[in-house]
Amino acid sequence: MKPHIGVLGPNTTTDEQYQLGVAVGRLIAEKGATLFCGGLDGMMRAAAEGAKSAGGQTVGILPGAEKNAANEFIDIAIPTDLGAYRNALLVRSCDALIAIHGAYGTLSEIAFALRLGVPVVGLQTWEVRRGPQPDPGIHIAHTAEEAVARALKLGTPS
Amino acid sequence: MKPHIGVLGPNTTTDEQYQLGVAVGRLIAEKGATLFCGGLDGMMRAAAEGAKSAGGQTVGILPGAEKNAANEFIDIAIPTDLGAYRNALLVRSCDALIAIHGAYGTLSEIAFALRLGVPVVGLQTWEVRRGPQPDPGIHIAHTAEEAVARALKLGTPS
Amino acid sequence: MKPHIGVLGPNTTTDEQYQLGVAVGRLIAEKGATLFCGGLDGMMRAAAEGAKSAGGQTVGILPGAEKNAANEFIDIAIPTDLGAYRNALLVRSCDALIAIHGAYGTLSEIAFALRLGVPVVGLQTWEVRRGPQPDPGIHIAHTAEEAVARALKLGTPS
Amino acid sequence: MKPHIGVLGPNTTTDEQYQLGVAVGRLIAEKGATLFCGGLDGMMRAAAEGAKSAGGQTVGILPGAEKNAANEFIDIAIPTDLGAYRNALLVRSCDALIAIHGAYGTLSEIAFALRLGVPVVGLQTWEVRRGPQPDPGIHIAHTAEEAVARALKLGTPS
Repeated sequence: MKPHIGVLGPNTTTDEQYQLGVAVGRLIAEKGATLFCGGLDGMMRAAAEGAKSAGGQTVGILPGAEKNAANEFIDIAIPTDLGAYRNALLVRSCDALIAIHGAYGTLSEIAFALRLGVPVVGLQTWEVRRGPQPDPGIHIAHTAEEAVARALKLGTPS
Repeated sequence: MKPHIGVLGPNTTTDEQYQLGVAVGRLIAEKGATLFCGGLDGMMRAAAEGAKSAGGQTVGILPGAEKNAANEFIDIAIPTDLGAYRNALLVRSCDALIAIHGAYGTLSEIAFALRLGVPVVGLQTWEVRRGPQPDPGIHIAHTAEEAVARALKLGTPS
Repeated sequence: MKPHIGVLGPNTTTDEQYQLGVAVGRLIAEKGATLFCGGLDGMMRAAAEGAKSAGGQTVGILPGAEKNAANEFIDIAIPTDLGAYRNALLVRSCDALIAIHGAYGTLSEIAFALRLGVPVVGLQTWEVRRGPQPDPGIHIAHTAEEAVARALKLGTPS
Repeated sequence: MKPHIGVLGPNTTTDEQYQLGVAVGRLIAEKGATLFCGGLDGMMRAAAEGAKSAGGQTVGILPGAEKNAANEFIDIAIPTDLGAYRNALLVRSCDALIAIHGAYGTLSEIAFALRLGVPVVGLQTWEVRRGPQPDPGIHIAHTAEEAVARALKLGTPS
């Protein structure tokens, strides 16, 4: 089964952030992985649009009960009706994650990923620390290419 | 988005039950719906095999955390790690359900569907009653054709 | 730790059904067990009122996010915000269950209990069957006394 | 209904950390709130021991299916069998939280609290940031007294 790469990020984006999400999604599809996301707007839509532009497959793990709430680039929507618990389900479903910017929802997904041991790559996103240094659990990337390469490497059993 | 039709049933089947599941899965795909199931063996595998034989798309909502536990006919596996709670998630994800034979797991899915108002068609499966008559919430079908036609009609917004 | 005995039943009751719930709740407390229920109205309130009348302890597993939605006889409310999934959590939390009357919500809890192997005693409630005979998984009781005695026996490790 | 104050923290503690947890738990009970925690060892046990030493009430939201896995200071255990999802349920059940030290599990609870808008007070715990400054969502306290006073104030509807 293809790797599941999740893209995490905010509901609303700047144009620049959106284009970064599209680039990440496209690369995920080009590398043969399936894109997972929250299925709604902003970064979730950007990544799905990117994946579809490269002929990839997209899955949206939705918070509500209505599958048609998914954005138009989602192939398979899972209408969980789990509200905020769905963030944990999204993380659990993936082999690796790429977090891009984001608010508290994204932070909760990053933290849950660290908790579960699902590798997470950060692109201009949250930093977490218990002491003077950032926690090394979030793998920092600086470009879409670096983020996708890192996520695929970390998410593939060696 | 295509209708999501779930097939519910036991982990192990007789040959005859398995062929019934294959027929149901094939018809679901032929009618253009996406097959949802629990992703494992027995009736879940039968329905997925049927759907793939007709070029359809298959989704498995798995109880465990390992996506490779899915049977070979599953396109998209959701490794929920929710254990028995995943039965509720499977029901919630579908527009309509077809229950074929089955043990207590299937019964729990039928009951959760009745609770949520997700239409459920029964094919040689459980009967539930509060009085002398079977509860009419389970729509009885006698053939694969009848079950799929009923489920698609009930699961499509009028 | 004291046994956890759950009482399942409808949101609205007749006076007679309510009194049956009170009697069951009172006996659960008199026998030293903790009453678990869904925390809202009807049978859930009846059982909690009965348990408090005998000085017992009551827990309500609520579907919503607001703990003050619990009825006035609940000591500890768990505001799960899990919606219908909370029915499964309630079942999972108990050592044994008593189902009294009830609609589809109660049926879903009975079925989930059978699925999980949590003993369930039925008092004028649903019957489930795969063939001509009722499934023996639901232990039938005819009085509050019989129901509570059965549940405590079944829910206590031997 | 009494405020629900959750204490979050690691499975294993130093003696000093344990004593801090005991102090926090004791103050929560003295102020008339109910202590919620994960029900297991380390900081969870410390806080529950503290609360019981002041005659308070303690609830443990357990990850597993066995209620007797709770530590000896838990009055009411909820054996959720939800695994890591239970961290989200614990947060959701509380009016306010106090995070003391902790590893990734605690971080996931802090983040989920920020996501849900459940106030969270930090005592020698994680810091999260999107820019050069720590995010102000975690209310910093320096002593057990300050932490409990802050949590009670933030968790009580004004």
